Amino acid sequence: MTGRLITLEGLDGVGKSTQAALLRDYCEGRGWQPLLLREPGGTALGEELRRLLKSGQAHSHSAELLLFGAARAELLHELVRPALADGRCVILDRFSDSTLAYQGALNYFDEQALVAVARLAAGGLVPDLTLLLDLEESAALQRRSAANSAAAGSPEGLDAIEQRNLIYFQRVRQRYLALWQQEPQRIVKIDAGQDIDAMAQQIRAALEAKWPI
Amino acid sequence: MTGRLITLEGLDGVGKSTQAALLRDYCEGRGWQPLLLREPGGTALGEELRRLLKSGQAHSHSAELLLFGAARAELLHELVRPALADGRCVILDRFSDSTLAYQGALNYFDEQALVAVARLAAGGLVPDLTLLLDLEESAALQRRSAANSAAAGSPEGLDAIEQRNLIYFQRVRQRYLALWQQEPQRIVKIDAGQDIDAMAQQIRAALEAKWPI
Repeated sequence: MTGRLITLEGLDGVGKSTQAALLRDYCEGRGWQPLLLREPGGTALGEELRRLLKSGQAHSHSAELLLFGAARAELLHELVRPALADGRCVILDRFSDSTLAYQGALNYFDEQALVAVARLAAGGLVPDLTLLLDLEESAALQRRSAANSAAAGSPEGLDAIEQRNLIYFQRVRQRYLALWQQEPQRIVKIDAGQDIDAMAQQIRAALEAKWPI
Repeated sequence: MTGRLITLEGLDGVGKSTQAALLRDYCEGRGWQPLLLREPGGTALGEELRRLLKSGQAHSHSAELLLFGAARAELLHELVRPALADGRCVILDRFSDSTLAYQGALNYFDEQALVAVARLAAGGLVPDLTLLLDLEESAALQRRSAANSAAAGSPEGLDAIEQRNLIYFQRVRQRYLALWQQEPQRIVKIDAGQDIDAMAQQIRAALEAKWPI
């Protein structure tokens, strides 16, 4: 038996972490031995790269793209593929669609080169199901700001990746929606404007449509 | 005025560092304000990535490839492009041809994906002149072993990248020679079986053929 790969995508602030935890519980209940991982990070190398990325040490768009790719490649090699081979369910908080949406929205890369890097980093692996938590960009930014204010006193503040603006987030969202339109079989759009329980309910329905009980 | 980009390529042990230093002196003499850089490294991010790569923390071929690419992208952004824009001569100890030869020789990557990553990392920049220091692989390995024995007592010993075998080096050399055959205008092959002075003389001749005094 080969496992299931489920990815969560969307803007920061849409509630991915909360839904990922609820999704893990649900998958546990179905006996799928879920493994929840976040990008970048999850491996020794990935955590080092996460630190480098968060501290803004990559000063070029290309370096940033390639570091995200390296973290992903390592995560796949070390954890994702072995878990899938064991028949487990792997839940990834961000995957290739994040690269295509976030790095693509920089309008800096040649599209073919971007797709080539994303594919190489993923080693050709495609999720069985992707949950796109969709929210209007200004609402997502507002939620994120509220979360950051609540964490005031944190010495970190906004990190290098978070310091991007509303126009950029608008483009990221449009790219996500375009991916969803291209691959409606793989990507299910979830309305992230709903409350936590309603979103979780919609996510469970998507899983049950794909893998009936 | 835009500067000159000169790269040095070849197997470890062929004498690139020695020739790079001599080449820098020569370029200094011609008033080109040379900047000598090595890959990976040369920037804060690059040095961190060099450390991660040398310690063998990248366990997958893809992660290793992408980390080398990230270090290169950063080096270009931070140092190479600004120096070229100032009209200086930049000497790089390894560049895109290293990726195509070393990572290509793993026989792991799709060729098109490898070229796409190398091109993205280089931001489309192509050297004006590449000096391929060519030596039969067993001779290169022998020289390297001798250098490592001389450094005995060093706690590091052979690093993760250096622990590759003769058959692999044979493939790397063949890839270098194939690149030279594809681009004889850009790549000049230097016989690294000669002594230091004779090699330096051949390198100077290549520069003077390209940029007459």
